[in-house]
Amino acid sequence: MSTTFPVLSSPALAPAPVAAPVVPPQSRLRPLGLGEVRITGGFWGERQRVNAAHTLDHVLGRLESEGWLPNFDLAAEGALPRGRRGREFADSEIYKYLEAAAWEIGRSSDPSLEATFRSVVARVGAAQEPDGYLNTEFGRPGQGERWSDLEWGHELYCLGHLFQAAVARERTRPGADDGLLEIARRAADLVCEVFGPSGIPAFCGHPEIETALAELGRVTGEARYREQAELFVARRGHETLRDIEWGRTYFQDDVPVRDAEALAGHAVRANYLAAGAVDVAVDAGDDELLGSLRRQWARTRGRRTYITGGQGSHHQDEAFGDDFELPPDRAYSETCAGIASIMFSWRLLLAEGDAAYADLIERTLYNVVATSPAADGRSFFYANTLHQRVPGIPADPEGTSPRASSSLRAPWFEVSCCPPNVARTLASLDAYVATADADGIQLHQYAPAEIRTTLEDGREISLDVQTAYPAAGTVRVAVNEDAASPWTLSLRIPEWAAGARLRVLDGAGAPVSDEAAEPGTASVRRAFRAGDVVELDLPIAPRVVVPDGRIDAVRGCVAIERGPEVLALESVDLPGGADVGRAALTADATELTPEEHDGRVWLRVGVRGEDAPGWPYGSTGAAAGTAAGVEAEAGALVPLVAYHDWGNRGPSTMRVWLPLS
Amino acid sequence: MSTTFPVLSSPALAPAPVAAPVVPPQSRLRPLGLGEVRITGGFWGERQRVNAAHTLDHVLGRLESEGWLPNFDLAAEGALPRGRRGREFADSEIYKYLEAAAWEIGRSSDPSLEATFRSVVARVGAAQEPDGYLNTEFGRPGQGERWSDLEWGHELYCLGHLFQAAVARERTRPGADDGLLEIARRAADLVCEVFGPSGIPAFCGHPEIETALAELGRVTGEARYREQAELFVARRGHETLRDIEWGRTYFQDDVPVRDAEALAGHAVRANYLAAGAVDVAVDAGDDELLGSLRRQWARTRGRRTYITGGQGSHHQDEAFGDDFELPPDRAYSETCAGIASIMFSWRLLLAEGDAAYADLIERTLYNVVATSPAADGRSFFYANTLHQRVPGIPADPEGTSPRASSSLRAPWFEVSCCPPNVARTLASLDAYVATADADGIQLHQYAPAEIRTTLEDGREISLDVQTAYPAAGTVRVAVNEDAASPWTLSLRIPEWAAGARLRVLDGAGAPVSDEAAEPGTASVRRAFRAGDVVELDLPIAPRVVVPDGRIDAVRGCVAIERGPEVLALESVDLPGGADVGRAALTADATELTPEEHDGRVWLRVGVRGEDAPGWPYGSTGAAAGTAAGVEAEAGALVPLVAYHDWGNRGPSTMRVWLPLS
Repeated sequence: MSTTFPVLSSPALAPAPVAAPVVPPQSRLRPLGLGEVRITGGFWGERQRVNAAHTLDHVLGRLESEGWLPNFDLAAEGALPRGRRGREFADSEIYKYLEAAAWEIGRSSDPSLEATFRSVVARVGAAQEPDGYLNTEFGRPGQGERWSDLEWGHELYCLGHLFQAAVARERTRPGADDGLLEIARRAADLVCEVFGPSGIPAFCGHPEIETALAELGRVTGEARYREQAELFVARRGHETLRDIEWGRTYFQDDVPVRDAEALAGHAVRANYLAAGAVDVAVDAGDDELLGSLRRQWARTRGRRTYITGGQGSHHQDEAFGDDFELPPDRAYSETCAGIASIMFSWRLLLAEGDAAYADLIERTLYNVVATSPAADGRSFFYANTLHQRVPGIPADPEGTSPRASSSLRAPWFEVSCCPPNVARTLASLDAYVATADADGIQLHQYAPAEIRTTLEDGREISLDVQTAYPAAGTVRVAVNEDAASPWTLSLRIPEWAAGARLRVLDGAGAPVSDEAAEPGTASVRRAFRAGDVVELDLPIAPRVVVPDGRIDAVRGCVAIERGPEVLALESVDLPGGADVGRAALTADATELTPEEHDGRVWLRVGVRGEDAPGWPYGSTGAAAGTAAGVEAEAGALVPLVAYHDWGNRGPSTMRVWLPLS
Repeated sequence: MSTTFPVLSSPALAPAPVAAPVVPPQSRLRPLGLGEVRITGGFWGERQRVNAAHTLDHVLGRLESEGWLPNFDLAAEGALPRGRRGREFADSEIYKYLEAAAWEIGRSSDPSLEATFRSVVARVGAAQEPDGYLNTEFGRPGQGERWSDLEWGHELYCLGHLFQAAVARERTRPGADDGLLEIARRAADLVCEVFGPSGIPAFCGHPEIETALAELGRVTGEARYREQAELFVARRGHETLRDIEWGRTYFQDDVPVRDAEALAGHAVRANYLAAGAVDVAVDAGDDELLGSLRRQWARTRGRRTYITGGQGSHHQDEAFGDDFELPPDRAYSETCAGIASIMFSWRLLLAEGDAAYADLIERTLYNVVATSPAADGRSFFYANTLHQRVPGIPADPEGTSPRASSSLRAPWFEVSCCPPNVARTLASLDAYVATADADGIQLHQYAPAEIRTTLEDGREISLDVQTAYPAAGTVRVAVNEDAASPWTLSLRIPEWAAGARLRVLDGAGAPVSDEAAEPGTASVRRAFRAGDVVELDLPIAPRVVVPDGRIDAVRGCVAIERGPEVLALESVDLPGGADVGRAALTADATELTPEEHDGRVWLRVGVRGEDAPGWPYGSTGAAAGTAAGVEAEAGALVPLVAYHDWGNRGPSTMRVWLPLS
């Protein structure tokens, strides 16, 4: 085992695996896995419940009915290529499903899910070639040769997801006899042989295997998996892959990873690669690479990220735009890019400890990941626009959308990477809540939760977190055990939470301290006693937010946020269901006063008249934009919707950024 | 012959063909062809000279070296499909070259070009199948079956361009024995047979053949070509083609043409289809369809057109965005879409006479068509962004760009529709300058030109236009012949030209009249005498232009125009070559005073400082956009560049819309 941290259940035994997606051998913060943190309810608990009860079944059902899982049966029967269905990367969705199921089994020990999991693993394993090769699209007579299309073939990408599934399984059910880890190892051994130092000097067009190999190396102790990940990262950026319409930036083969200044190209690929590069840098102690990634993260966050945390402005190549190129109406902001960004941020958080990483994770969780699935967990956004100009057409509940950028959630997509990606993220979310270091516990995300762990020196920690966050701003952390010596409880104060306060109460409820907490990290160091309570008050009142003046697309606009949630104006909430394109705020940004009542946030919004189309550009003072006059001077008070909840009341138009008139 | 208008050279004989791309049998305005209007110099004359001297050769050279023309030789030898090169629509570029060469021969009678033209026609003709079928990509063993891929195969699209080449040839060299018209007729006959009323009930994914068949019908007098065009237009919009990722809107198969409210989907396809629909409506006297197209044009101009006249906001599907979705940094604004828009506008202008159509043509000519080719006519913009955020990389002068949206002009593209499209447009541009009606002449575009024609009633008209437009705003129209009775000379007053004046001077130079001319059309009706001069003064001083408040992407910005030219700020003109992303205007829109000296327009522009990236969204009054402070309060006076001239001084950044600070 690659971790040196003991866990709660077996402090005296050899260290058991931490049931978390990322477990670096050394890091500033030690991840707490599913055995140590359990989300018990609230905003995320409900989403995890729906994920377990509905999404996993929904995904598996589609994997069967679309033929993507049966592809493995055809492979086992030697019947391919005839009858193969789905895109070249369809295999990966089965692996993402397996990863999601593994985490969920780790959370719930559901025997029915365990049986299903084993049967899917068996079908996957039956399709593996004797030498370890595993892919339903390549390598057979009538198919492309193995590794013949590294730009688009996704073979290594698919294996990356296989490895992540195996890691999830081994971390949650170590030594399980289902065979998944062996399948992964055989495939990984083949990859190391074929792409090793004296093998094919290339890599996959879609990064993913880098972070997967690094973690598989951590789980198995195989140094060559880590070395292969390192090799894949180092090879990138030297124009090895073919040039394509969108340039080699698309698959991050234009600039070596350590020389890049910001994430660029395909937003999922860029973030997966960056996540793998952090793993490689941490494992190798490569501080130069880590420093470069830290700077890339900062510039990407500061200049290439939507207010929702969403990343990727381009529909065409699902790619980042240039700095400040963030048009809300063309926000692609793919759900998977949000997930990939969380993976990158989380690895940097473990390595460096800065609360800013957890801030971006929170923003992305609430406004990208939570936006994708409908409340029933059976339909999803793939892209997450910030401005919907025309009402969408509801998706066929039995159908498969050929489009990523539909304006209403769809049950499945021809490219259906997002639904199982959401599923694996929600099923493993407990592992992103808190970490430990030698001196204590860090709370990064706020949810009702039980935290039970043991510090490096053997001190047992037991905390219960109670909160209605983000509906309310109070987070109450109850300490369940006496501590022999002082330890530190750290809480993230979000970047938006100016005016937060942190209180400590003793077992009798008497205040020990009550202090202002600045955005960043607030810490209480104390020889805690059972019954002590640390109470954080985050000001979640609605805020009026203005954009950097260099983001051209939203100049003259404001957005409204409340706590970690970005709010939006949806046409169904406007008088007469008016198009949001006709909405304009009638006050100055500094005079806007969003109100909170009836469980919603309300804002005074004017509705412009409609006119016949004329030439829309005019000399100063001339008639351009005659329709810009606001109908009612004061406008009407209309309710906003949490961005993650939009599109749930039928076809509508929606905008996050509201123009000042 | 389908026209009833006699032409200058043979008023007493049977009506000769009008040497123009569009010659409706009836229309409000009668086009004047190459035999009647000759551009003699100036802005467009220079571009026509370069087009004839360099671009035609450049295009033909690439058609040879890329193998696209040799595909026809392989077809004739029976050697296809092996060795075929280029995309499925490569044939069309040869036809566009032939059309361009036909117009150029019509202008210049260059014997060398005539010989080249004939040799290319012979190679094309040799590839035609006995039944008239002509396409190098389909129909042979090892290729797709004929008409088996109407969504993407482009067979009918290619034939459309063949027909337009044949029309150009027949109008400029009637009865030439080169065989092109016969090739076209054989192919058109096959199309009518295969896709006629009882044939395949479908149409081409890429419209083009509609307008081409209509015109071929006009040239040949074959009613069934017109009827086939009508059928193709009527069949569209009933979801006949397969659904695709971008929806059937992409190829205008979502809504019947007469029910559409604005152009939508792929911008070239939409405009080509609309142009063909105008032809069909005019030929059939279908006023309902014509009215619908007029309204579609108005809404498209008013809500889906960039300030340059460019159309199409989406890179992904080369498509129109929704109303007011016009982000400058993601302006696709394909050169071919500009040309297609001119085709649509020109047909409406002939049908309806409204100066607004010619306004949009002028804007698109100066700011899209003129922008594409470099001064040497050997490299081209495919897409025409309005905001270049990062300096581009110069294209390999011998290479072929895989990208449509490069930020510097490229000599050729893997999809190279634009260069030959520019060539055919410039070679036929004389035919877009002026028209006639029963009572006189209408000048739509201002260029030094000779106009010689005969009105319906036999009155001969001879005019010489002298102007340095758009460098200067004076247009001087000299009348060369006495008129027995009054006739009307009409001049378009551009929509931006508030304050224009129109003077009439007699042969002695004495003023006859001097009046203000409102934007729209100004007319002089007079029994003109030889020596009379009509002088138009257009105020071409730089103007500050503000956008409609509903175009989110440019809120808080202004653009500068001068005459018909949109100006831009290019980094090479900023102090130290600073990125235009750091530029901001330091005055209010109403206080901006562009100055004109040293042959350029100058504006006071501030340059913002640079900062470390932070979270770019902040609460009102907080630190968001701290870098927005302008370095020098007043800024420096910097020269602007005509948009059509940008990108000619090496890698740079550029923006048309300038933010107010």
